[in-house]
Amino acid sequence: MESGTRQGALSPCAACKLIRRRCAQDCVFAPYFPADEPQKFASVHKVFGASNVNKMLQELQEHQRSEAVSSMVYEANARFQDPVRGCVGAISSLQQQVESLQAQLALAQAEVEQMRMRLISPSSSSSHN
Amino acid sequence: MESGTRQGALSPCAACKLIRRRCAQDCVFAPYFPADEPQKFASVHKVFGASNVNKMLQELQEHQRSEAVSSMVYEANARFQDPVRGCVGAISSLQQQVESLQAQLALAQAEVEQMRMRLISPSSSSSHN
Repeated sequence: MESGTRQGALSPCAACKLIRRRCAQDCVFAPYFPADEPQKFASVHKVFGASNVNKMLQELQEHQRSEAVSSMVYEANARFQDPVRGCVGAISSLQQQVESLQAQLALAQAEVEQMRMRLISPSSSSSHN
Repeated sequence: MESGTRQGALSPCAACKLIRRRCAQDCVFAPYFPADEPQKFASVHKVFGASNVNKMLQELQEHQRSEAVSSMVYEANARFQDPVRGCVGAISSLQQQVESLQAQLALAQAEVEQMRMRLISPSSSSSHN
């Protein structure tokens, strides 16, 4: 009876297809999980569960949902790549990189300062004392 | 009949208490979700779901599970603090910090190089040309 009134009923979104539910016109998943990208929902479903993804999206305003889905997909994929540390592995490694860069920068800045002093009073440094 | 054979039956772990299941002697949650830290499990349950946490732990070797739980608790708390970006917010901000530090370091190193040249041939720099 409703045939032709909406495409969703004929081609459910990737989420509704995976969890085998009717894809309603106002389906919260449909805008972010198109049928031609089934892996996106499969990933977040395996890590967060469809019901939690649904809840998390419902709690957000519509303009925030696309970014929330991206971050969930990213987190889920990170968990597959590193089942022990997930995203937190990337955070630890970035934190180490920040610390190392800060140390290198402090050294370089100290060197600049030291050279500036030698350029200001060249006599004090030219005799190798 | 089994009273006294294990403490777990009398005081279930935080996970079993929350999801109201019997805390078995070989409960996969019990070592990581003690009864006196109920918030830890409540967080991962709300974000990942008890069943997914169970599955993820079962797929790991025992010596990896403690770190996996820590990373899941961290991710879950990040999702509460930033429901849109979760952990990924921290990753983006660390990546920006790395890029900014790399740029500052490159500048400082270029300055060092320039000063080194001026110190090697002071005559070329002393006349402000």
